[in-house]
Formats: sequence, C-alpha cells, structure tokens
Amino acid sequence: MSDVTVVELGPRDGLQNEPRTLTTDQRVAFVRALAATGLRRIEAGAFVHPTRVPQMAGSDEVCRQLQKDEEVRSRGVHLSALVPNLVGLDRARAAGLAHVAVFPAASETFSRRNLNQSVEEALGAAAEVCREARGHGMRVRGYVSTAFGCPYEGDVPVAAVLRVAEALLAAGVDEVALSDTIGIAHPGQVRAMLDAARGHLPLRAIALHFHDTRGTALANVLAALDRGVATFDACAGGLGGCPFAPGASGNLATEDLLYLLQGLGLARDIRLAGVLDVSEWLATVLGHPMPSRVAQATRARAR
Amino acid sequence: MSDVTVVELGPRDGLQNEPRTLTTDQRVAFVRALAATGLRRIEAGAFVHPTRVPQMAGSDEVCRQLQKDEEVRSRGVHLSALVPNLVGLDRARAAGLAHVAVFPAASETFSRRNLNQSVEEALGAAAEVCREARGHGMRVRGYVSTAFGCPYEGDVPVAAVLRVAEALLAAGVDEVALSDTIGIAHPGQVRAMLDAARGHLPLRAIALHFHDTRGTALANVLAALDRGVATFDACAGGLGGCPFAPGASGNLATEDLLYLLQGLGLARDIRLAGVLDVSEWLATVLGHPMPSRVAQATRARAR
Repeated sequence: MSDVTVVELGPRDGLQNEPRTLTTDQRVAFVRALAATGLRRIEAGAFVHPTRVPQMAGSDEVCRQLQKDEEVRSRGVHLSALVPNLVGLDRARAAGLAHVAVFPAASETFSRRNLNQSVEEALGAAAEVCREARGHGMRVRGYVSTAFGCPYEGDVPVAAVLRVAEALLAAGVDEVALSDTIGIAHPGQVRAMLDAARGHLPLRAIALHFHDTRGTALANVLAALDRGVATFDACAGGLGGCPFAPGASGNLATEDLLYLLQGLGLARDIRLAGVLDVSEWLATVLGHPMPSRVAQATRARAR
Repeated sequence: MSDVTVVELGPRDGLQNEPRTLTTDQRVAFVRALAATGLRRIEAGAFVHPTRVPQMAGSDEVCRQLQKDEEVRSRGVHLSALVPNLVGLDRARAAGLAHVAVFPAASETFSRRNLNQSVEEALGAAAEVCREARGHGMRVRGYVSTAFGCPYEGDVPVAAVLRVAEALLAAGVDEVALSDTIGIAHPGQVRAMLDAARGHLPLRAIALHFHDTRGTALANVLAALDRGVATFDACAGGLGGCPFAPGASGNLATEDLLYLLQGLGLARDIRLAGVLDVSEWLATVLGHPMPSRVAQATRARAR
C-alpha cells in the first residue's frame, strides 16, 4: 500500500456526467482496467434512480460482475457505490458491495436542488444508511458537497462544512470527503479549512475531492499533503464534473494527480502509464478527448 | 508594491508563439491594457532577427511608443525586452528600454538547436550583453531555459542549471528566471532545485517560469512560495509556449496565477478582472480561446 491513497471515481462521478452512456460490459471493463493499474479503491456505480442519472442505471449488474471478477478480487480492490437511501443500500448489498457512500451537502440551496432535501434531512437519511450499513459490517464514506463554495450561495462558511462532517462521523462514516463541487477551491482555502478542522475531525478520516476548473487542483493537493491529508479523489482522464452544478468542469484527473504524487515519491504502486491507457480508451468509447493535462501532453508528444 | 512580483510575458513569450502576428497598434494596446491592471513588470518585445521570430518584428516601434506612453510612465511600469546579443541591446537602448533579458539554456542540445550556440558560447554572449548593459545603467534578467528538463536530452542535472545561473549572476544579471521550457516540472523537482540553489544563489534573485502543460504550474508556484521565492512569470490568457520545444503548451496564465496568489492574500494590487478582460480581447484578436483555466471557467459561467 502507498502512503497516499487515491480514490478513483471515474466509473461513477466521471461517467454520471457524460452525454454518452456506456454499456454494462464497458463499465466492467473500465473498472477492471483501473484495477490493473494498481488503484485499490474504486467507486464503481451509484444506486440512484435511473431516470435521474441514466448513466448509472444497471449499477447492480456492473457491481455484481466486478465482485466476482478474479482480477478485481485477487488485487484486493475495494469497490464502492453511491447510495442515497436504504433502497440504494439494499441494492448495494445485493450486488455484494462492502463499501458505500452517502452525499449530503454543506449548503442549503444546493442540498434542496440536488437532493430535494434540506441539509438536516439529508444528514438524517445519511445517518439511517450508516446505521444499517454498519449493522451489516459495511464501511461508509460521506461526501460533503459544496465544501468550498456553492453554485447558488457562493461562499459556504467553514463552520457549516465542519458541522456536516462531524455529523457524518458521529453517524458512523469512516471517512468524509470534503468536496469542491464547483472547482473554486484554492490553497488559501484548503489551509484555512484544514486548520479549522484540526481538533474537530481526525486527520486520517479526511479525504479531499477537487475539480480542476481553475487550475488549482494540484496546488490544493500539495497544500493538503503538507497538512497531513493522505486521501485524494480523482477520475481517470479528468472525467466528470457535476451535472447539477453550473460551470463545473471535470474532476482532477487521476493521471495528473499521480504525476504530482509520484514526483514527490508517493503512490508509486500505481502505474501512471496504465492510467493513461485507460484514459485513451475512454476518449474512444466516449467520443471526445479527455481533459487531463498529462493525457493531453502525452498525446501532443506522440504526434 | 506587492509582496509577490508577477512578471507579465504575454506580449513577448506569449505572442512569439502565435500563428497570427499582431500589428504594432495591437501590441501597444495589449501592453497598455496590462499596465492598467496593475502589473508592474511587462516584457514588451524581443530584439531578435525578424525572419526567425516574425511576431516580434517591429519591437523597436512598440517599445518606443510604450516608453513615451503616459499611462505606462505614470504607473511606473518596468518594460523589458529579450536581447540575444549586442545588436539587440543597441536596439533596446535606442527604443529607450532600461531592462533587457538574456536567455541561455541549461542543456547543450537545446542551446545548439534554439540558439545555434553551445551553452558556453551562449553564456559568453550573455556576459557581453550584461557588461555593456550595466555600463549604461540598465538592469538585466537572465532566463535559464530547460532548467527542469530538455525536450531533446530529458533530465537536466540540477548542477548544470545552477552553473548557468551562477555564471549569469557573476556576469551581472539582477535576476535569474529558472524556466520550465517544456512544462514538465513538478513540486518535487521545484523543492529539490530550490534546496540545491540555497547557498549558491540569493533567493531574491530567483524567479520561476512555469508552463501549465501537465497541470502542475500552480502547485509548483505554491512549493516555491513556501521556500521563499517571490517572483513568478506568467502570460495573460496562458498564451505562448516555446516554438522550438515540441509538445510544450502555454505559459502559466496570469489570471490563474493571480487566482492562487490572491487566495493567499498576495498580489492584491493587480486586478484579476482586468486581466480577464485583456484575455478576452486576446481571444478576439488572435482568433482562438485562451487556455487559461480561470478564463475558461469565467466564460462557462457567463454562458
């Protein structure tokens, strides 16, 4: 295991924002290829309503196939999926998953528009999922959306973010992923957030989730590494963004994150070249080039 | 003056790589608009051979007009230009400039292909320019190209970079700009470079010049800020790249750099919104969108 953990979200957060929906076989192949690069935590699907996120329809079958997959099993990959409620949790369990994720937001307007729930209601639903999941011995991650800013409200107070994160930890999540849903976070904000979190949240329970909308994602990772955070989210190719957050571009690309981390001697057990191959395949099946800077630079050199 | 100095290179390093050549009036307007944002150091042209870099032909007239310009004068803007030799220096002096820049490289192959000189020959020519310029009371900046890697040789030893930087300082340059010509630098490299430089180069004489080819430019700036570097190069819009370095994309965008710096409470005397306006104007006159991430995010929000 590496000192820094990369949580790969391409098959979920990445694909859910793509106009083209992949087939079950393609989704399974995507996760298998990621697993083969050495990535050990992969979010493989979402048990949300298929009319709301059609790209994630059939996550049951995707996860079921992957849980039986010899490559995924032998490599000890932890697969997870997003679950909004107990119905979603039942589907995740039926598919054989041992890891799920809940996703309240830190800002009221985003919560109401994205989840159709107040922050309190979303926390209540998340706590319910946590309780049930832990009763079955499952691990739960809690995303905190809009942790660095809200597309509707603008600034989100650090106190509001910490309150949601603390509530999630109290409800039994193993990890909170503070998420820069709209890609506005800069290192000054990351430092302020982590300094405020100290004493409230255990450092090892904090993951950070950045989008590279303003070019700051890797600087944010560096700022967080310097303060001891060791878990970062990314999507192969820089896929994704949030379909419900206007102006948000893709997630931090896994290959860009690895370029930074490996230059610091970290995460060396993941094959960057392998992720670049996955990214190139994604460009083919999704019909557009990937936004990853490292992938773009690699394409430019190959020309 | 701000605690951190942004050196704006759009009118030189930016434009020299553009397929479309701007008119004298457009180039003057570009620099005036940059000056109006609060930028205090602007590289306005290059006194190189016009057949080699046609985009920089007529830098004499551009600089002459700007030196007389009331807005530029009243704001105390320091204009500079690239000069490869004594002929270039004479042209710079005739245009009224008090700042010039020389540009040897740290790697032999790049030096020969880009300058048609060995590293030693280029250092000799730079020393000659320095001596003469300082005799006229001018200030000289020395770029060290390929400081973080060479498109032909790959890795460039830190010792080779420091040797060129020390030779330039010994020859009388006021500042060395360690330049990531091909955009491969990552924070691990920046830290190693600055740690090695300590004791050899005065910290205040070091500027850093990054391209955002692999998405690491702002992380590199953050790593350098943490080690006390206070001067950074950038190009409005993320213009540029090096026409002689295969696969290199644009320079770090001024607006992206400001987004990071201002989030840390630095460089607040420069108007980010003003730079975004300049960047939008550039997209019009150059006929393509600017690569700056902040500019792209701003355009996406405006839609």
